[in-house]
Amino acid sequence: MVNGIERPLDVLNNAKGKEVLVQLKNNRQMVGTLLAFDIHINVVLDNAKEMLDDETKRNVGLTFLRGDTIIFISPASVSK
Amino acid sequence: MVNGIERPLDVLNNAKGKEVLVQLKNNRQMVGTLLAFDIHINVVLDNAKEMLDDETKRNVGLTFLRGDTIIFISPASVSK
Amino acid sequence: MVNGIERPLDVLNNAKGKEVLVQLKNNRQMVGTLLAFDIHINVVLDNAKEMLDDETKRNVGLTFLRGDTIIFISPASVSK
Amino acid sequence: MVNGIERPLDVLNNAKGKEVLVQLKNNRQMVGTLLAFDIHINVVLDNAKEMLDDETKRNVGLTFLRGDTIIFISPASVSK
Amino acid sequence: MVNGIERPLDVLNNAKGKEVLVQLKNNRQMVGTLLAFDIHINVVLDNAKEMLDDETKRNVGLTFLRGDTIIFISPASVSK
Amino acid sequence: MVNGIERPLDVLNNAKGKEVLVQLKNNRQMVGTLLAFDIHINVVLDNAKEMLDDETKRNVGLTFLRGDTIIFISPASVSK
Amino acid sequence: MVNGIERPLDVLNNAKGKEVLVQLKNNRQMVGTLLAFDIHINVVLDNAKEMLDDETKRNVGLTFLRGDTIIFISPASVSK
Repeated sequence: MVNGIERPLDVLNNAKGKEVLVQLKNNRQMVGTLLAFDIHINVVLDNAKEMLDDETKRNVGLTFLRGDTIIFISPASVSK
Repeated sequence: MVNGIERPLDVLNNAKGKEVLVQLKNNRQMVGTLLAFDIHINVVLDNAKEMLDDETKRNVGLTFLRGDTIIFISPASVSK
Repeated sequence: MVNGIERPLDVLNNAKGKEVLVQLKNNRQMVGTLLAFDIHINVVLDNAKEMLDDETKRNVGLTFLRGDTIIFISPASVSK
Repeated sequence: MVNGIERPLDVLNNAKGKEVLVQLKNNRQMVGTLLAFDIHINVVLDNAKEMLDDETKRNVGLTFLRGDTIIFISPASVSK
Repeated sequence: MVNGIERPLDVLNNAKGKEVLVQLKNNRQMVGTLLAFDIHINVVLDNAKEMLDDETKRNVGLTFLRGDTIIFISPASVSK
Repeated sequence: MVNGIERPLDVLNNAKGKEVLVQLKNNRQMVGTLLAFDIHINVVLDNAKEMLDDETKRNVGLTFLRGDTIIFISPASVSK
Repeated sequence: MVNGIERPLDVLNNAKGKEVLVQLKNNRQMVGTLLAFDIHINVVLDNAKEMLDDETKRNVGLTFLRGDTIIFISPASVSK
């Protein structure tokens, strides 16, 4: 059970400082530590890796992601 | 018969805490427990599974979904 | 002849409680009973069926459809 | 010569009650009697036919069309 | 040299009553006399022809074009 | 080193009256003299040429380009 | 560890004057020195190179990039 999720952005707030999986519209994923986000769902990841089909394509380090390219953000996926 | 649906978001409000099927624009589906949503139809699912052609592709756990990637959300579909 | 259609949303208002055909951008259709809609053309259908090429693909029951995935909504099409 | 067209919506206003051709982004056309429109170019057609390559695919009767799926609306095309 | 173009819409204002080429996102062009436009770049053409690869596909006469389907509008192209 | 670029639009302001390369989303480019632009990045080019793979496809002269079809605008590219 | 990132745009502010990698929706990348950006994530790069599959396609020099074509911006990627 997940406590204290009243609004969607609460999930992102709780995930600050933790690893998240970000699914992008171009079929790629970004995995990294969530540092910041805003209401447009623009997000900043640290130590980010761009992945395709579970394979790391590029290490892109600190990265700003525009919200409109994001399908979902999953804090729990990384520890799976 | 469905009672008390005056506005579209009432359906999502009634579905909180229940399993829902979310159809995404990238042809995939997410199935999970609806925890929260907002007026942009950003939603949070718990215990979410990403599916393709009725097959589970990934367990993504707690997940934030951006509204603009969603085609439909169906609370009844899961118990079908 | 159709009386009382001053604004486009009047058609949807008149169709509440009736079966409608909703054409989606992903080439599929949804057929169901129109329960609610809003100015974004988000709609709620009850007893909805997802169709492709006149064939039922899935019964999805009560369903929330995001407006920006809709091409047209036709109340008359079902009784054709 | 066309008189009295000051703003684009004047063309739609003049076409109320007349047959129009609506070109959609999915390569199909809708032909029907224009009953109503709004500033989003949402339109309502009566006795609408969905066409592909000059061939009628479906009679959809009274139909609500979302503006963002429309490329052009041509009142004169039908009587051509 | 072109005089008096301070803002982009000045070009469209100067082109009223003249033939223009409108390039659409669906790879087609419309050629016709510019009658009206608004800030969304919705435009009305008279005696419009829909063209593909420099070939006329359809005469669509008086036509309302939604701005968001337009790539460019060129008043000079027609007299080329 | 480039002086006096505080905001992105400063680059376009400095480029007025000069040749620019405009990369469009449909894989084509437009090269011409920048006459005007607005905050939507709608731009007007004079003596514009539409190019594909470094080859001129059409001379379109004075042209209004809608901002939402533009990927980038490069004042320096032309003199390369 | 990255200090002082409270909001996503802080990353872009810190990257001014430094090389960044900009991933575009058309599968290409732009690498250049970040000179300016705004809230739409319109950015200006100096000495920009357009790249495809890690290969330089064009040197485009000073370049204005429209925000809605950007997937991510990564200041750290270049020094990798």
